[in-house]
Amino acid sequence: MKNFVYENPTKIIFGEGQIARIGGEVKQFGRKVLLVYGMGSIKKNGVYDQVAGSLEKADLEVVEFSGVKANPVLSHARRGIDTARRENVDVVLAVGGGSVIDEAKTIAAGFYADCDVWDFFTRRAVIQKALPVLTVLTVSASASEMNAAAVITREEEAQKFSFRSPHIQPKISILDPTVQFSLDAAYSAYSAVDAITHMLEGYFNAKEVISPLQDGLVETLTKVIMEDIGVILENPRDYDARASIMWATTLAFNGLTTAGVGSFSLPAHMLEHPLSAIYDIAHGAGLSIVLPAWMRYALPEKEVKLALFARRVFGIDEKDDRQAALRGIEELKKWFASIGSPVSLKEAGIPESDLEKIAANAAVLAEVWGLRDYTAPVIEEILGHCI
Amino acid sequence: MKNFVYENPTKIIFGEGQIARIGGEVKQFGRKVLLVYGMGSIKKNGVYDQVAGSLEKADLEVVEFSGVKANPVLSHARRGIDTARRENVDVVLAVGGGSVIDEAKTIAAGFYADCDVWDFFTRRAVIQKALPVLTVLTVSASASEMNAAAVITREEEAQKFSFRSPHIQPKISILDPTVQFSLDAAYSAYSAVDAITHMLEGYFNAKEVISPLQDGLVETLTKVIMEDIGVILENPRDYDARASIMWATTLAFNGLTTAGVGSFSLPAHMLEHPLSAIYDIAHGAGLSIVLPAWMRYALPEKEVKLALFARRVFGIDEKDDRQAALRGIEELKKWFASIGSPVSLKEAGIPESDLEKIAANAAVLAEVWGLRDYTAPVIEEILGHCI
Repeated sequence: MKNFVYENPTKIIFGEGQIARIGGEVKQFGRKVLLVYGMGSIKKNGVYDQVAGSLEKADLEVVEFSGVKANPVLSHARRGIDTARRENVDVVLAVGGGSVIDEAKTIAAGFYADCDVWDFFTRRAVIQKALPVLTVLTVSASASEMNAAAVITREEEAQKFSFRSPHIQPKISILDPTVQFSLDAAYSAYSAVDAITHMLEGYFNAKEVISPLQDGLVETLTKVIMEDIGVILENPRDYDARASIMWATTLAFNGLTTAGVGSFSLPAHMLEHPLSAIYDIAHGAGLSIVLPAWMRYALPEKEVKLALFARRVFGIDEKDDRQAALRGIEELKKWFASIGSPVSLKEAGIPESDLEKIAANAAVLAEVWGLRDYTAPVIEEILGHCI
Repeated sequence: MKNFVYENPTKIIFGEGQIARIGGEVKQFGRKVLLVYGMGSIKKNGVYDQVAGSLEKADLEVVEFSGVKANPVLSHARRGIDTARRENVDVVLAVGGGSVIDEAKTIAAGFYADCDVWDFFTRRAVIQKALPVLTVLTVSASASEMNAAAVITREEEAQKFSFRSPHIQPKISILDPTVQFSLDAAYSAYSAVDAITHMLEGYFNAKEVISPLQDGLVETLTKVIMEDIGVILENPRDYDARASIMWATTLAFNGLTTAGVGSFSLPAHMLEHPLSAIYDIAHGAGLSIVLPAWMRYALPEKEVKLALFARRVFGIDEKDDRQAALRGIEELKKWFASIGSPVSLKEAGIPESDLEKIAANAAVLAEVWGLRDYTAPVIEEILGHCI
């Protein structure tokens, strides 16, 4: 096991009926709150009313900032920063999924910034301070409700970049599994894909066993998520499955499974970001396309670990590592397809003729993230596996 | 899954060579530190020198308070409180295992208390404030380095009681697996027994599956700990096994595996506390005696869950639940014996004629902890299984 620092101070309030507590929790951090949300789905599923009611009961002054889109964009976040400054809010409350939370984090960081907020994403500047962020989670996937990361797309150049800082880590997040009863099958599936990919980025960081502990946590959570999503696609209102997957997706990227893994990179995310940045597809949908392709690419180097994954997660009984690994990749692809997540660029309506453009975009991110092996030609080759 | 609140702000600094950071970390909380440790083993294994060197380098004023014994006692903790007050320290640093950390937490709580510190343990008073606690862990087992609990024995009545409060949760804990290279086989085994028992108290809280997620985490960590201790008993200096068990024992009782389990009690700990309080045996040794006996007692009610445990952890291939459960209990007992932890009162030198006395002692704790079914006669019956 590698040396690590693990610190995750976010308080999670989990369960049915807990959204009513949000007003009291926000109140600890100030009197005037910027309520950040998306395109209005929370007004249909009752979450908005629960949140607004609780904030009112706590006698808080609320400034609304809505219209955050999936794959949130920098221009909109900039407007949020302007609003937060103009209204001089004390605290930011995100009510939504990863996109809303990430934009809220960006607004919280931008509020105090004396540089351009985009400089945090390009690593030109380091954030020193942010408004406190709280969340009410409505779509599980990113674990942004319990981590220090945010991802935003700068539309002009279709650059989907990220930054991390303890300053933007949510203070408190409320997770009520019932709010996802109305989440459609496709987004439920993308949520599972995203969470599993988060864990596998760390898991495949090493060629062989990292430690029975860390590998065991990833394998266990992966199998649990697969089981849960099977139940949910049959019955979207199954509380236990919704609760299990909600907590599992949070644990999948809150630092637990990567503690001890050593420094690790996110090659599948690097390959996916151009897809959702350029074509505005769901992040989970993009990941189910690129992850098996990346695994094929990584096979020569990571054969042993890929074989272990195949045996432990899919129960593949095959002694030869290469064969086991190949069958595991196929099983994962089949499973993605079975839950309705695309496994080729074509299925997502992305033309083969765009490969060069996509690769050029990804290569910029690879450079920012320090993934030196991933030059544009290498990326194009990998993407060639998922036409 | 039941509703829960999960909050664990302790910062863990994990790995070889990390003790050198303690001075800088302590310095964030003040200039004058109470250094709490035990009977001097840290002077033999080099930990004392590492800690003292780092504190000196950080230019901190150090007040030493040593002599904490395993199964720490209230009278000694009271002396620690006196010392802390007289010297007006800013922060408490525990260097040791669970006993040292628990006494340090008690001192930190007692420092500001305007009641008798024992009132926190009998639940007559609620702690409002404590000195900041930091730890350098030398013996894994209790997870006290990353939780809000402390256990102390009041010698006069051999009462081994506990209390919990976020105020005594360590701010920062440093875990260097190499410090346990010199830990003897018996204490290495007790560490594993304690950690596994912590998880099983939550696991057996329910009659059936709690959730595939929570059950899966417990089963995975249990198997990992069993595997690690096997390696360690062969080679006490195996870094990966020491690292794995060190982190696994922390995760075993830091709130992770019990989040979602619902309110749960600690019947095995209730049964054990009189053993270590009266006979001063190691807590882990006491647990390996009482846990299988408690499982036998719980069998009629928890047959399904006990069978699940037997199948998943010991791979027992037996369809009948009762039979599977019985075999699982036997396997656990055999495993305890195989690592050198006692499985009967006799092995620990505790006479059968004391059963009534032990049961009377446990019954007092059962009442404090609200375990209403556990009257003295019931406890005596359970202990009858482990003569």
